[in-house]
Formats: sequence, structure tokens, C-alpha cells
Amino acid sequence: MYYPEPISKLIDSFMKLPGIGPKTASRLAFFVLTMKEETVLDFAKALINAKRDLTYCSVCGHITDREPCYICSDQSRDRSVVCVVQDSKDVIAMEKMKEYHGLYHVLQGSISPMEGVGPEDINIPSLLKRLQNEEIKELILATNPNIEGEATAMYISKLVKPSGIKVTRIAHGLPVGGDLEYADEVTLSKALEGRREL
Amino acid sequence: MYYPEPISKLIDSFMKLPGIGPKTASRLAFFVLTMKEETVLDFAKALINAKRDLTYCSVCGHITDREPCYICSDQSRDRSVVCVVQDSKDVIAMEKMKEYHGLYHVLQGSISPMEGVGPEDINIPSLLKRLQNEEIKELILATNPNIEGEATAMYISKLVKPSGIKVTRIAHGLPVGGDLEYADEVTLSKALEGRREL
Repeated sequence: MYYPEPISKLIDSFMKLPGIGPKTASRLAFFVLTMKEETVLDFAKALINAKRDLTYCSVCGHITDREPCYICSDQSRDRSVVCVVQDSKDVIAMEKMKEYHGLYHVLQGSISPMEGVGPEDINIPSLLKRLQNEEIKELILATNPNIEGEATAMYISKLVKPSGIKVTRIAHGLPVGGDLEYADEVTLSKALEGRREL
Repeated sequence: MYYPEPISKLIDSFMKLPGIGPKTASRLAFFVLTMKEETVLDFAKALINAKRDLTYCSVCGHITDREPCYICSDQSRDRSVVCVVQDSKDVIAMEKMKEYHGLYHVLQGSISPMEGVGPEDINIPSLLKRLQNEEIKELILATNPNIEGEATAMYISKLVKPSGIKVTRIAHGLPVGGDLEYADEVTLSKALEGRREL
């Protein structure tokens, strides 16, 4: 027994978080002891509240504390466009951009045969139902630009296109502020392929 | 408002920990949502218990959940040797070594005129009291091998030596597994200075 029990339990809890090993966990646990009691109580409450009060929106699958979520219930948004993303964090990234005013559909994952994740395991059935019931004109596929994300985008595109809804995919190319010299070949080839007239 | 309130509060709490910025905090907060409710409750309890149940041992200053701490109250330990360290984590490091069986005194800091920390601000007065009342034969100074740690060791050594108690300092030298080629000059000079006959 190296640590008094209360601190070793706290270290164990920190170690359950991703990217936190024994050294960092012990550093964080000792830091907690130097924090004000009020701050620690707030932290504990925040943990419990986040876990208890948050669910997934029944319409779009985004994480939310109300039903439907604040985006789905916002009547000022353009209800004819739906942007499909893999993760709730992607919604946050899009919202921070402040240029998109349509709705979202959060898949909460991507199709990955390697990991045994099929179309039925992520929010694709609920997306198809939405497309039938709501008046959606454009579906923007904003899944990640990697193998799983591309496969998911292709799958959805093939399913939806016959219904006549416009299906678009976000552009691949050089990131702004990036360096052409250091771009990988696939990105560069996609950037060239997607060139536009000025 | 990008995040639902419960998750933004949790992100704020994680950001109060050292070395955790907004990106990591949001990654950890979203991870908490995927954890089992029971695990999250245990985490919250561990935070509160660590903060509420742990105090500093009135004898040695080590962090503890009982009074005196498990080391001070362990009658099998050699009560004639006291190892002075800066931090409770240093006690853990020493204990993991499994070769030291004496007592400890945790300063909870080091003398640092730059940061306005004087001898009275760390557990030096309680150390002097212990030396008067307990039968201590050797005081091992194991403060960190940096400017503050050295200064603290020198200060304690000057105060204690006149009383006739043996005062020793842990050795400086090359770390085991290290490379002579990459050792800095000060360490190398200390290693040479501290050479021993084989």
C-alpha cells in the first residue's frame, strides 16, 4: 500500500480516462487535493450531471439535455438542408464556424466492416426515416475524410440519390495555412481534381 | 452556446486540472458520456472522498487518511532515521524502492526566495520540534537536486548539525541506465566528485 486509499481510488478513476497513464493520474489526483473543496464538489456534480442529464436527440442523434435538441428545435434554421456528421463533436466544430444554418444528423460512428460496425449499428435508419418524413432538399455528407468516413458517405449517397434529394460531399483539398510541399499525394491529387475556375 | 450546459460545465471542470487544455477537456468530457453510470458515480465519489478524507499527518506532514499516518504509526520501522523530502509523491517514490525502512518528514515545498517561500512557510519548524522530542540519529536530506532543493538541504543541514545528529544528503551522479556522453557537466562533475573506491 503506497497511497492512502482515497487517493489511490481517485488515481484509478483518472486512469480510466483516455490518454491518462499512472503518472498523469497521480499528478492530477494530487492536484485535486490542492483545489478548493467547492471546486472539487462542482467537478463531482458536473460528472454526475453530464452522465445523467445528457441523452441523444431523438431527431438528429446529437447529444442534448432537452428533447428535441437546441438545433432541431431552433425554428430560425434552414430546415431544407441536413449535414450528416459522425460525431457530436463534429456538430460543435461546424457550429463554431458560424456559417452553416441548416440542420444536422449525427451518425454516432461510421461504417467499419473491420470493427463489425454495419449501417444498422449507426444512425443511418433514423436518417432514412427523416428523409421520408421531412422536406429535405440537400444532404451534405460531412463524414471524416478517411476510409471509414468515405465508405459511409458512399453508402448513404447510393441509398439516397434515387429519391431525388441533392447529395453533396464536403471538399477535399489543402488545409488553409498548410504547405503544398508537405501535403501528401492523396490530398494533393484531390485538391487538383477539385480545382475551380477563378 | 455550442455545447449543452451539462457537458460545457464538465469541460470547464476538466480544464481546471493542470496540463489539460480545451481540446483534451472536451475529449475527456465526451468520453465520460460513454462510461458506465456506475463508473462515473465512483469517479465523483472518489473526487469528494479524496478531498474530504485526506489531511496531512500531524507528525511527518505526509498525506494521510488517518492520524498519525500509516508510516508514522508502523512500529516495525526504524525510528532513528528520518528522510526529509519535499512532497508526498516523493514518499511514494521512496516506498516503491522498498529499501528504506525509516521514517519521513514531508516539507510540502522548498525554500524559494524568488517565490517568497521561507523556512517558516514549509514544514521546517515541525521538523526541528521532532528532532528535539524524538530519538533521531540520522537525518537524510532527499530534497530535489535543483537550486531550491539544494538551498533547502543546506539550510536544514546548518540548523541541525550543531545538535550532533548525523545529517546526510542523497548522492548526485549519473542515473542508472543513463549515458555518460549525454550527461550535463554539473551532473558529471558531481559524479566524479562523489566517486567511491571499489
